[in-house]
Amino acid sequence: MRISELSRRSGVANATIKYYLREGLLPPGRATAATQAEYDDTHLRRLRLIRALIGVRGLSVAAAKQLLDTVSQYQADTHQVLGLVLGIPTGGATSKAPQDAEGEGGEHGSEADALLTALDWEVSEYNPARGVIDETLETLRSLGLDHDWRFLLPYAELARRTARLDLDELESLKDPLEMAERAVLLTFLLEPALMALRRLAQEAESMVRHGETASPSPDSCAAQRLSDEQG
Amino acid sequence: MRISELSRRSGVANATIKYYLREGLLPPGRATAATQAEYDDTHLRRLRLIRALIGVRGLSVAAAKQLLDTVSQYQADTHQVLGLVLGIPTGGATSKAPQDAEGEGGEHGSEADALLTALDWEVSEYNPARGVIDETLETLRSLGLDHDWRFLLPYAELARRTARLDLDELESLKDPLEMAERAVLLTFLLEPALMALRRLAQEAESMVRHGETASPSPDSCAAQRLSDEQG
Repeated sequence: MRISELSRRSGVANATIKYYLREGLLPPGRATAATQAEYDDTHLRRLRLIRALIGVRGLSVAAAKQLLDTVSQYQADTHQVLGLVLGIPTGGATSKAPQDAEGEGGEHGSEADALLTALDWEVSEYNPARGVIDETLETLRSLGLDHDWRFLLPYAELARRTARLDLDELESLKDPLEMAERAVLLTFLLEPALMALRRLAQEAESMVRHGETASPSPDSCAAQRLSDEQG
Repeated sequence: MRISELSRRSGVANATIKYYLREGLLPPGRATAATQAEYDDTHLRRLRLIRALIGVRGLSVAAAKQLLDTVSQYQADTHQVLGLVLGIPTGGATSKAPQDAEGEGGEHGSEADALLTALDWEVSEYNPARGVIDETLETLRSLGLDHDWRFLLPYAELARRTARLDLDELESLKDPLEMAERAVLLTFLLEPALMALRRLAQEAESMVRHGETASPSPDSCAAQRLSDEQG
């Protein structure tokens, strides 16, 4: 396809595509004339991944280029590719860190270590989400809630099921770049929606547990309408 | 208790407590001398709620005062109090809006309407989380993911279970102000932790589905150490 069709199908402006070509984020097309080139589906998929990394994950062009270079090295390793695009630094082996390092599980490690050990989740020690767990528990304690990591166990079980839904959504895709793009979109864009679903569910659940039947029931509405019509 | 003990037990600075007293967020204590007053547990609970509303929910002092005034009117109605402190505007009756308004469910309403109808969740039409659902689906579509609200159904079922955990945590509390404070802390402070749990779960789940056993096993580590010691 020509660059104009690549632009139309990817939703990325012509000028932006040319910029990505100059910066080396996108490999050059097959030259068909001095000023013309043909692009194919690999360009389209790569362009969509670039858009996800820059537009959704918020990476700089330079950081996206570096990441894409690393991704191409690991292209055959889906687990590595997903980790890379989702922002888990490589360099360390994935390991059940506290068990390996300290024998029986996390007394001297962070609370995230203890939680992950209890859950038997195999997670890189470089996953930045570990720090968020520790910080949250510390904040809750500073505000008088005396909870440790055990408090998060049932929440973690539900998070695991949520992650299974996320990964199920990727199963249908064969191309690793397409998978990577979808993973970025789902992980980052769904976050506000998942939190919104929790807020809506809290209201619905509070209604079930504490709601009074203060609002008129359908029957009394019908009675009201009837009396209005008659009156 | 004296103001100094109120400060110590609430974690709110002396000067801040005096400011809240002047602004009317906190009712005056029982005067015991010209410049001294006694405070009790109701002050402590209210102060903790103020701290949650300002420090965690990020309300201004004026907005917190207005909210606290409304909360005291509804103090006996747990469902109303929780809605108020969590930021769901009052004024409309809680209703299954699309069903009531349009007969059989949301064809003309928003996608959030259709989702809530399908879930049979009773949620105020003023809950701002509805808008987040619609925006997210629109963004995903603009990026080429052709999903409608049905895609969110299994996520919503998990969100409902998460909300049940949240509300279970409030059950043990009897005082409505204490419940309100805990609801604010749990709802707002847990958000980053819940998203972090999802990220950790994604990595763990990806490891199970796509991970290779590339990292050395404990046995080969032991063998390595042994050969190092001997070498």
